[in-house]
Amino acid sequence: MTEFHFTVTHTHGAARRGVLTTPHGVVNTPVFMAVGTQGAVKAVTQRDLEDLGSEIVLANTYHLYLRPGADRIARLGGLHKFMGWDKPILTDSGGYQVFSLAERRTVQEQGATFRSHLDGSEHLLTPESAVDIQAQLGSDVAMVLDECLEYPASHDRARESLERTLRWAKRGRDHFVAMRSRSLESDSRDIEGGRPLITNPGQAQFGIIQGGTYTDLRRRSVDETVAIGFEAYAIGGLSVGEPIAEMYDVTEETTRWLPADRPRYLMGVGTPVDLVESVARGIDMFDCVLPTRNARNGQLFTSAGRLNIKNAEYAEDESPADPECTCYTCRHFSRAYLRHLFLSREMTSATLNTLHNLHFYLDTMRRLREAIVFSTLEEVRQSYRRIFPA
Amino acid sequence: MTEFHFTVTHTHGAARRGVLTTPHGVVNTPVFMAVGTQGAVKAVTQRDLEDLGSEIVLANTYHLYLRPGADRIARLGGLHKFMGWDKPILTDSGGYQVFSLAERRTVQEQGATFRSHLDGSEHLLTPESAVDIQAQLGSDVAMVLDECLEYPASHDRARESLERTLRWAKRGRDHFVAMRSRSLESDSRDIEGGRPLITNPGQAQFGIIQGGTYTDLRRRSVDETVAIGFEAYAIGGLSVGEPIAEMYDVTEETTRWLPADRPRYLMGVGTPVDLVESVARGIDMFDCVLPTRNARNGQLFTSAGRLNIKNAEYAEDESPADPECTCYTCRHFSRAYLRHLFLSREMTSATLNTLHNLHFYLDTMRRLREAIVFSTLEEVRQSYRRIFPA
Repeated sequence: MTEFHFTVTHTHGAARRGVLTTPHGVVNTPVFMAVGTQGAVKAVTQRDLEDLGSEIVLANTYHLYLRPGADRIARLGGLHKFMGWDKPILTDSGGYQVFSLAERRTVQEQGATFRSHLDGSEHLLTPESAVDIQAQLGSDVAMVLDECLEYPASHDRARESLERTLRWAKRGRDHFVAMRSRSLESDSRDIEGGRPLITNPGQAQFGIIQGGTYTDLRRRSVDETVAIGFEAYAIGGLSVGEPIAEMYDVTEETTRWLPADRPRYLMGVGTPVDLVESVARGIDMFDCVLPTRNARNGQLFTSAGRLNIKNAEYAEDESPADPECTCYTCRHFSRAYLRHLFLSREMTSATLNTLHNLHFYLDTMRRLREAIVFSTLEEVRQSYRRIFPA
Repeated sequence: MTEFHFTVTHTHGAARRGVLTTPHGVVNTPVFMAVGTQGAVKAVTQRDLEDLGSEIVLANTYHLYLRPGADRIARLGGLHKFMGWDKPILTDSGGYQVFSLAERRTVQEQGATFRSHLDGSEHLLTPESAVDIQAQLGSDVAMVLDECLEYPASHDRARESLERTLRWAKRGRDHFVAMRSRSLESDSRDIEGGRPLITNPGQAQFGIIQGGTYTDLRRRSVDETVAIGFEAYAIGGLSVGEPIAEMYDVTEETTRWLPADRPRYLMGVGTPVDLVESVARGIDMFDCVLPTRNARNGQLFTSAGRLNIKNAEYAEDESPADPECTCYTCRHFSRAYLRHLFLSREMTSATLNTLHNLHFYLDTMRRLREAIVFSTLEEVRQSYRRIFPA
């Protein structure tokens, strides 16, 4: 039995306010997951994340598999214990990084062969090994391995890729289900030669909808992925270069076809406006490096729009980055100081900017959850479109 | 009237437990000051410093003068407001960095001409401008400009350098006293052409004892510097390459000659054992980059000695860096995780290691203050010598 379940508590149009229950606690949706690539959200501590109200973080399987190794993390009791974070964790399948980061990658039916960007060592990631690795990490949500389609791609190319993704989804799910029943038989934690195979028996597995920008393929992807049956469904292959309008259209269509009682996760998205527009279209979960990466580049998200802290105009500006903001950074530091830290290449610059941007993102999600309950989503939407014009 | 005063509350041998009162609050001595070179202690936030119990931090005049500029900090209300730190701050004179970091430096009687390491611009630092710059920064303690003597140096060279330092001390003090009386006449904050000259009217100024490793010169330095008269006295020119025993000897002699009712600050020192040995010889204040810099290099100070977190032996070590330690890092993270963060070059590595090392240093000072009150300094001394053998 998985401890994973999802309850929609309110709806407003296509938007949903819900509660996701995982082995490591509940997550209020719609939710934004900060990205902790290597088992740490860059420039902040776990204490900072808790103070910010982060209820779930994402970690990258590809990175952790290569270093320090999923075996090692399993022997250390799993990812939660390893990184000192006892709230929910979602791990990706590793596929996206194999497609974007690894060297000399070749994809066969069996899986993807690649060389580590760290030391050139050769590895094979298969639908089954993606399950095994995430079982060792013990995240609360594991993602199935999919093939990442480039943009633009022809209909033929997109169909072939989708068909492989569907075959991989079936293999990944079968392997996951077999492992889960095996783990139930063997007292929740399977050990093979001293190597723990599963560090979180309540782990859920999400399927991924692909199909590029082709409506018929997205439809087929939903039908066949839902037929395989996962705890929930993610929309992949968006925010890869397609026009924003197309991304919203695919999101809108796809969420309409997805089962209403399962969470919907839009992978790798996005800007504040993307969050608002996608929530309005029925998305429940997001992850994106934008708030954390932009913070390190001195780009702040504020209630008055984007702010580039290195601009000369802030050299003697005593006001906080965002006068409307209640984050630690805005309550204590001026734009002049933040600019100084950035220009002086102080690590504290990355920390203070990241605290602010994550607060902005998490606060956006709080507003959206509230707006769904009080049916004021349209106001939030107009406000964000005004603050962040296209 | 300066708000600065110092009370020795307990003595034990040459060691003293005291309370230093400054315009921004009290400091319990002996005290260790974390180094916030550019107006930020690297890798941690001001909130972290407060949580650690830091009662005073040091900032570097040279760095802040060049970027963002002392004028600018003055216009922004002074360094405390600028960096969001309302506890005491000590600033150095800038001299040490001019001697160690700046390019094409030449020293004349007037002062030191140098080129910025940032942009090559030419600057002149004089005993008077060092006072002016620190008045603009508005630190609670300003240091007088001294000449930094290389090690080794002949007796003649050391004497000539000391004589210049004494002439500079007189000029620096005269300028400081004149400025202070001017500021009292003009309602505590002098403005010249929109440029605030003084941002902290209660600022104190410390003199610096030089003389290399020569007893007669150190004695002369004490006599003549004390004759000029400063709120307190620092010992400079140590920890520059001389044998440790020599450093302790100079410290012991010099503190014996210094007035008992004024704080004694040993500049740029040192290791945990240095702190213990110097407190036993009557030192009240310290600053050093060792805990923060070593943290960023993966070197941790623990109750079992130095620990290099990148060592392979910690790859699967579930114990905290220091099982005896109560810092945030040790309460939440394993050596295995800290090693992973270090090898993965995560900024969080620097943060967690810095939190630990500063906690170790501040905890060492807490123990020393307690040991003076309870006359158990010898036990602490033996314990630190055992933990950190020479």
